[in-house]
Amino acid sequence: MNKQRYAIIGAGALGGLYGAMLARQGFEVHFLLHSDYEHVREHGLKVDSIWGDMHLRDLHVHATAETMPPCDVTVIGLKTTQNHLLAELLPAPTADGGVVLVLQNGLNVEADSAAIVGDKRVFGGCCFLCSNKVGPGHIRHIDFGKIVFGQYRPASSAGSTATQNDARMVSIGNQICEDLNSAGVPTEFSDNLALVRWRKLMWNIPFNSLSVILNASTKQIMDDPDASALAEAVVREVHAGAAACGVTIPVEMIEKTLENTRKMVPYDSSMRLDFLNKRAMEAEAILGNPLRAAKESGYEMSRVETLYQQLRYIDHTNS
Amino acid sequence: MNKQRYAIIGAGALGGLYGAMLARQGFEVHFLLHSDYEHVREHGLKVDSIWGDMHLRDLHVHATAETMPPCDVTVIGLKTTQNHLLAELLPAPTADGGVVLVLQNGLNVEADSAAIVGDKRVFGGCCFLCSNKVGPGHIRHIDFGKIVFGQYRPASSAGSTATQNDARMVSIGNQICEDLNSAGVPTEFSDNLALVRWRKLMWNIPFNSLSVILNASTKQIMDDPDASALAEAVVREVHAGAAACGVTIPVEMIEKTLENTRKMVPYDSSMRLDFLNKRAMEAEAILGNPLRAAKESGYEMSRVETLYQQLRYIDHTNS
Repeated sequence: MNKQRYAIIGAGALGGLYGAMLARQGFEVHFLLHSDYEHVREHGLKVDSIWGDMHLRDLHVHATAETMPPCDVTVIGLKTTQNHLLAELLPAPTADGGVVLVLQNGLNVEADSAAIVGDKRVFGGCCFLCSNKVGPGHIRHIDFGKIVFGQYRPASSAGSTATQNDARMVSIGNQICEDLNSAGVPTEFSDNLALVRWRKLMWNIPFNSLSVILNASTKQIMDDPDASALAEAVVREVHAGAAACGVTIPVEMIEKTLENTRKMVPYDSSMRLDFLNKRAMEAEAILGNPLRAAKESGYEMSRVETLYQQLRYIDHTNS
Repeated sequence: MNKQRYAIIGAGALGGLYGAMLARQGFEVHFLLHSDYEHVREHGLKVDSIWGDMHLRDLHVHATAETMPPCDVTVIGLKTTQNHLLAELLPAPTADGGVVLVLQNGLNVEADSAAIVGDKRVFGGCCFLCSNKVGPGHIRHIDFGKIVFGQYRPASSAGSTATQNDARMVSIGNQICEDLNSAGVPTEFSDNLALVRWRKLMWNIPFNSLSVILNASTKQIMDDPDASALAEAVVREVHAGAAACGVTIPVEMIEKTLENTRKMVPYDSSMRLDFLNKRAMEAEAILGNPLRAAKESGYEMSRVETLYQQLRYIDHTNS
């Protein structure tokens, strides 16, 4: 069996790292680049990584999606704020029935891809990763990196179980998992994407939001009695929101989320970096979608809604 | 009957204005001054007011409370963040059984005064006032000025009715009301202080808080769809919190509060001015006390709690 062919849409801190790992392992990887296209074509892609430094030349780089060949797996590494571009970017690499792996933050972020290629060809995943783009074609991966992914199911079937995975998607998921692990990326194929996503939202919602609204690092939040009490209240609310959506997360995860954050080195969340760099923030993916999902299930996350509305105001005025 | 003698504790933008109005009308008014004592003793008190400019010399000014004579009415014009000073400041002017009129923002802010002079000698009131101290002994009163006050009752009897006013306090309250009106200060003596206070909290809680947390004027809040939706949600929550505490505010007041704010000239709340000047904010009086009162009555104001915790964090780091 031939190795799967990969497309990377959005070859930044995340897509660039994972694409480079696959390319180094001998996979055929096609990178779609925007501002860095000329630089990477001439000088290659440089990745300083805890998994070993790489400088990859002669990569398959593309300035537009039209020149990309059909691939088995198209990895979405864009921010969700760029999802309006997907209608233009996805058709070429997915032309022969390949699947899409959406490695974006938030909830129901796969819906935009599914609207283009269909519900049955989409995986979603969460990355536990500290990586930054530090220059043109230059990525610095400083910690973690695990991917946990699963088959996407539309919101209407969010509570459904593994038995509804179709056999073809299970087979492809297992192959992707094997590919990434063989390339040195610790990867897990889960039968419950909703659980994976809500579990990560328990961190992302409080700490992304509060780091922007309070202009604080994770350490500043956890060291303050009021800010940490608020963070805990939000973690609990998200845990309850998940339950309302039929996603049962062990209650110990509440304390574990806080405890892990207390032990983290002071960290700027991705949303805070977006804010400081005056980029649009992923308020819809990370707060708006979970808020609406819980509300449709009859549960009002009023603290999350407060943070969401504050972030939207800040987003409107941060330009 | 002799005219009532007044003491003004905290002769700033509020106490200075009302004290000057009473002094101009011929009442004997004793001002307790701190940083401005020498200036006012030498140069008098200057008030530029929509009610007519005044420059009052030969006032009764005091640098310490000990030199103040017993007065019939002691007006508290300090910020609640200074209430720890009351134990030292109240005994002299209230020595002969005079009453205290607490003109501070928030809820249950009379408790600190009542702990010193007793529950049965305290009035509380809300001022609807735009006034600033613009220099030593110099106050600029630019709009509004009405006082609505009522007899204080401890939290345990917050829902009690007018019939429980004791006759002596009703008589004194009527006299204070008459004095202030005769001096040109529009004043109303209410038989329901809790209603007056919660009604004002419907504005103070959302707009003081959000003006600091979002670094925004009232106009910026009301012009933004998300910030104004949040403000409305908080107004509704405070309205419900009042109801839980047995205080029924007509539901039309929700829309009226928002509508009045939309029509206001862009305005910096007192809390925002405190924040910008790196002074302690009145988070306890304005948010903490109502939050706890509602919680004791079984209602959780989770949006208000979120704002309260955010303000406390900001307060801790704003120095």
